[in-house]
Amino acid sequence: MASQTINVGKDLRAERLQAAEAFRQRMTEAGTYVVRLLSSPGAGKTTLLQKTAEMLGRSHRVGILVGDVETERDAERLAPYAPSIQITTGGACHLELPLIERALPKLGSEAFDFLFVEDIGNLICPASHELGEHLRVIVLSTTEGDDKPGKYPKAFRTSQAVVLSKTDLLPYVPFSLEKAEADARLIRPDLTFFALSALRDEGITQWCDFLLHRRAAVIATANEPLQSM
Amino acid sequence: MASQTINVGKDLRAERLQAAEAFRQRMTEAGTYVVRLLSSPGAGKTTLLQKTAEMLGRSHRVGILVGDVETERDAERLAPYAPSIQITTGGACHLELPLIERALPKLGSEAFDFLFVEDIGNLICPASHELGEHLRVIVLSTTEGDDKPGKYPKAFRTSQAVVLSKTDLLPYVPFSLEKAEADARLIRPDLTFFALSALRDEGITQWCDFLLHRRAAVIATANEPLQSM
Repeated sequence: MASQTINVGKDLRAERLQAAEAFRQRMTEAGTYVVRLLSSPGAGKTTLLQKTAEMLGRSHRVGILVGDVETERDAERLAPYAPSIQITTGGACHLELPLIERALPKLGSEAFDFLFVEDIGNLICPASHELGEHLRVIVLSTTEGDDKPGKYPKAFRTSQAVVLSKTDLLPYVPFSLEKAEADARLIRPDLTFFALSALRDEGITQWCDFLLHRRAAVIATANEPLQSM
Repeated sequence: MASQTINVGKDLRAERLQAAEAFRQRMTEAGTYVVRLLSSPGAGKTTLLQKTAEMLGRSHRVGILVGDVETERDAERLAPYAPSIQITTGGACHLELPLIERALPKLGSEAFDFLFVEDIGNLICPASHELGEHLRVIVLSTTEGDDKPGKYPKAFRTSQAVVLSKTDLLPYVPFSLEKAEADARLIRPDLTFFALSALRDEGITQWCDFLLHRRAAVIATANEPLQSM
C-alpha cells in the first residue's frame, strides 16, 4: 500500500512515557493509587468496579474514570458507588493520558485514595498505551474461553494481575481456571490471579485486600518523609 | 502531543475501497460468497464457524481464513470442518485485504462457494476496514451485556446481520435479546438478527438458510449469463 514513513515514532514514545511517569509520580505524591482495568467488551469491568467501589468506599476515597467509544452508560452505572466521569473517545480504540488528565479535575476533587481507570473494551490497542497507572489489571471472563491469554499476549505481558470474572457461570461454560492461568503464566510468570463473581459478591474481599496491600506498598514509601516529620 | 499531520489519508482510503471492490467482484465471478465475522474476543465466532462449516459443507465447498494477533489455535480448531488458514497479525488489531489476498491461495483451492473470514476479536478497529466481503456479521454473545451495540456503534452500523450467540446461557446472565436488538436497531434499523447456541446446535439451520439465500441472490445474478448459455 502506498504510504510514507516518517520517523517521529521514537521521540513521541519517549515523550509519552515521560508524561506517564510524571503523572504516576504526581498521583503517588497525592496519595492516589491508580488502578487500570483492561478487558474485552462485556467481561465485567463495570460490575467489578461497582462492587470494588462499594467495599473500598467504606474506608477510602474512590474516584472512577471510565472510557467508551460512545455512550455515558458506564458512568451512570457507577455514579451511585463513587464519583465517576465518562470519557468517550468517539471512535478511538483506547484511552490516552491527555484524556485522563482532562477528565480528572471533573471528578470534583483530586483527593482520592484510589483512582480506577476503566479502559475501552478491547484486549489489543489499550495494551500499547501507558496511562501512568500504578497497577494494570486484565479482567478475563469465564465465558471468553481459557485460550485467550496466548491470543492477546501484550495485554497479559504488560499487566500485573488477572481477574478471572463470572465464575458463577463456570458450571455452564467450557472454561478451566487452571488452563487460563497456565496459559497466561507462559506470557508472564509473576501474574497475580483472582477468580471471582462480582454479580454474586464472591471473591471481592480478597481482591480489595490485594488492592489495599498494593496501595500501602506504594503510598507508604512516598509519604514516609511526611509521616516522620 | 507533538505530531505532524500529513494528508495522505483520503487517497489511501479511496485506493483501499477500490481494492476491496475489485476483490469482491473477483469472488463473485468465481462463485465465492464472502462472509466476514466480527466480534469481541470469545464471543463464539470459531464455534459458530465449526457448526456452519459442518452444515454448509454437506452441499457446498467451504473455506475459512481466521485472524488472530498470535497463535494458530483457531485454524487448528476449524481444520476438521473445512480448509482453514490462520492469519496472525503479530500485534495489529484488525485484518487488512492484502493479508486476505496473500492467505487465500494457501487454502489449496480458490473454488469455494463460501469463504468465511473470522476477523481479530475486537469490536472497534476491524469495523473501519473493508475486506471485500459480501456480508458483514457481528457475533454478540449473551454474556457481554445487552448494552453493547450503542457502545460500539460503527461495528453495528457497517454490518448487515447480528448473531446473538450463547443463548444457552440466557437463564444465568442479565441479558435481554429484545433490548440488545432494540439497541442495535437504533444504529441500523435493517439489521437481520439470529439468536442461537452453537454449542447446543440450536438455531444453526436458520442461520445457514440465511447464508444460502444471501449467496443465491448475489451469485445467481453474476452467473446468469453463463447459465443461459
